[in-house]
Amino acid sequence: MSVTAPAGFAAAGTEAGLKKSGGLDLAIVQNLGPASAAAAVFTSNRCLANPVIWSKQVIADGVVSAIVLNSGGANCYTGSQGFQATHATAEAVAEHLGVSSGDVLVCSTGLIGEQLDLDAVTAGVASAAGELRADAARTPDAGLAAARAIMTTDTRPKEALHRAPTGWTIGGMAKGAGMLAPGLATMLVVLTTDAQLSSAQLDVALREATRLTFDRLDSDGCMSTNDTVSLLASGASGIEADLTEFTEALTAVCQDLTRQLQADAEGAAHDVAIEVRGAKTEHDAVDVARAVSRSNLFKTAIYGNDPNWGRVLAAVGTTDAAFDPYNIDVAINGVQVCSGGEPDQPRERVDLTPRDVTVIIDLHKGGETATIWTNDLTHEYVEENSAYSS
Amino acid sequence: MSVTAPAGFAAAGTEAGLKKSGGLDLAIVQNLGPASAAAAVFTSNRCLANPVIWSKQVIADGVVSAIVLNSGGANCYTGSQGFQATHATAEAVAEHLGVSSGDVLVCSTGLIGEQLDLDAVTAGVASAAGELRADAARTPDAGLAAARAIMTTDTRPKEALHRAPTGWTIGGMAKGAGMLAPGLATMLVVLTTDAQLSSAQLDVALREATRLTFDRLDSDGCMSTNDTVSLLASGASGIEADLTEFTEALTAVCQDLTRQLQADAEGAAHDVAIEVRGAKTEHDAVDVARAVSRSNLFKTAIYGNDPNWGRVLAAVGTTDAAFDPYNIDVAINGVQVCSGGEPDQPRERVDLTPRDVTVIIDLHKGGETATIWTNDLTHEYVEENSAYSS
Repeated sequence: MSVTAPAGFAAAGTEAGLKKSGGLDLAIVQNLGPASAAAAVFTSNRCLANPVIWSKQVIADGVVSAIVLNSGGANCYTGSQGFQATHATAEAVAEHLGVSSGDVLVCSTGLIGEQLDLDAVTAGVASAAGELRADAARTPDAGLAAARAIMTTDTRPKEALHRAPTGWTIGGMAKGAGMLAPGLATMLVVLTTDAQLSSAQLDVALREATRLTFDRLDSDGCMSTNDTVSLLASGASGIEADLTEFTEALTAVCQDLTRQLQADAEGAAHDVAIEVRGAKTEHDAVDVARAVSRSNLFKTAIYGNDPNWGRVLAAVGTTDAAFDPYNIDVAINGVQVCSGGEPDQPRERVDLTPRDVTVIIDLHKGGETATIWTNDLTHEYVEENSAYSS
Repeated sequence: MSVTAPAGFAAAGTEAGLKKSGGLDLAIVQNLGPASAAAAVFTSNRCLANPVIWSKQVIADGVVSAIVLNSGGANCYTGSQGFQATHATAEAVAEHLGVSSGDVLVCSTGLIGEQLDLDAVTAGVASAAGELRADAARTPDAGLAAARAIMTTDTRPKEALHRAPTGWTIGGMAKGAGMLAPGLATMLVVLTTDAQLSSAQLDVALREATRLTFDRLDSDGCMSTNDTVSLLASGASGIEADLTEFTEALTAVCQDLTRQLQADAEGAAHDVAIEVRGAKTEHDAVDVARAVSRSNLFKTAIYGNDPNWGRVLAAVGTTDAAFDPYNIDVAINGVQVCSGGEPDQPRERVDLTPRDVTVIIDLHKGGETATIWTNDLTHEYVEENSAYSS
């Protein structure tokens, strides 16, 4: 159930000594072919980490042979020395695997504004490349090691799998626990498939899947400089996938990983789905749901098991979406607390003790809908992000 | 040093029984004339509380005789019953003071989505109106009682004063501790002056003053439904104020109150000034500073005394402002931690133990500058807003 589940992929995770806390911190996922088609999407932050700048060049031709990922340092705002470190990392991978460095994606995650220890990185690359040559690199254990190596404040590795009845497979791994906001989140995701698809097809499928999943996870409103979601296709199943069917499956895998990211968000005590219905446009629905998801007052209320729907509507009121303040309904965990902009059921009826919370906002302006997944704002979030420099 | 400092004003604060915690919770400020010119600005939230809807009608002709304010309930999302309560409150004030209800501003603050106890409000109005008839209502103590009556989670009343050498005076009071974000914050502010100015002049002065002060306080990114800043002029000094001089003085008074609001923001441990320099436009400067002020990761880092400038630049990267990621400087409390988008001085040199923190971001794109005042994100903020339904 990992990036090694589809045929034609090998993975390795190793300890390069980059993470102060120790443990696995460098991973390589290699596409063994026969095809090497790929697509990738990146953060929309204008301050791009060096590995993102590099990887955007790599993906331009839709060909990727391998992806190397490290935790223990974001390599962002590290100037030309930082870019050279990214370049050297790709060169090292290329040399060990006998591929072109221009076909090696690089991902980094960790603290911004600190130089990576390039000696440690290159030693880690050598070690991981050695592992890749063994048969064991194609096993679930190898995929799991890679998934562990990219963790930062994540408490558990995140993997997902889809096996199509028609014979191809999608595997995936993800990391991300803070800076989880769209465009994308502080997330690194590697998706693999043995389906036969062109890089152009992969790009279409990946953009549609991320639009509906990772882009709608907004844990803490903070956008990272390093987010990268990549999709590598080996074609090793020998089966041409139907693009619609593939996109649906890919979306399901991405959704699975999205929910895992949400469930492991830093310090979260609740997983909150904010569903907006009756919107005039999908854009409106996303806007309204996102505004609520970013309200610290809403998020702290949820933490306190307080169904404070006034804070929901105060956040709705900051948007440009089409709505009439006197024709909005709000339900929290199945209790209609507000109808037509007035109090309906007593808020005391809402039970917020379960971890899963659903807020449904009906704008009564059309037929569009969207859901944003977020978390509450807790003591543990404050603790983790004030005590841990990341 | 209060709303009663300028000649021609009386104030009262009373206990109407609206606040569950008890204490003063209803205030009236009366303009005794001879003039009754006024201006007001309101929240830009599209979900308006009933008192805001009412007060927008009242201010239309620029004439205000009195303002009544209550804590213990926002009277927002309370439907037609709620609007009738606001109307009845203004009628009660008008009857007791012998003025037109159409010249009575109403402000409310507290929990959204709960009906006000109108009987308690009208009894409180009668009590406050009785106090207003006494000479004591023109003393600083009366102004202080009014300032106390509008407090919610505020830990202290907020007042400010400016006496112009040319003979007129501005006094002010404010409340606000959470939902402090622009457009405006959860703030109620009453400003009084005995200068002779028309309502049109007051409007110009008030909009300029709030643009540079209250609108640039962004404690927690949450915009209230009830914000109202009003300015009442009695003309009792008999002196026509120079509009430029008056606007400068009014801005200083608003700035004083802004800093008091910042210093008393819910649970804050640091008062942070985010100053953006070298912006192409003032709008860019405000945008960049506001983006940083709303980053929970930046805010928790400050709480943890962690000069994590990467989180500053990650927030800058989410804006549309003109900047080059490789030509940005960041200084925190006087230490240049980032120059030209690369690490400069070691972050360990930054001392974040003082309550006041200054972050200076230079975009090197022009000559415009702006400062946003914000706070850190603390355990106490989470505690107050998860445990207290407001």
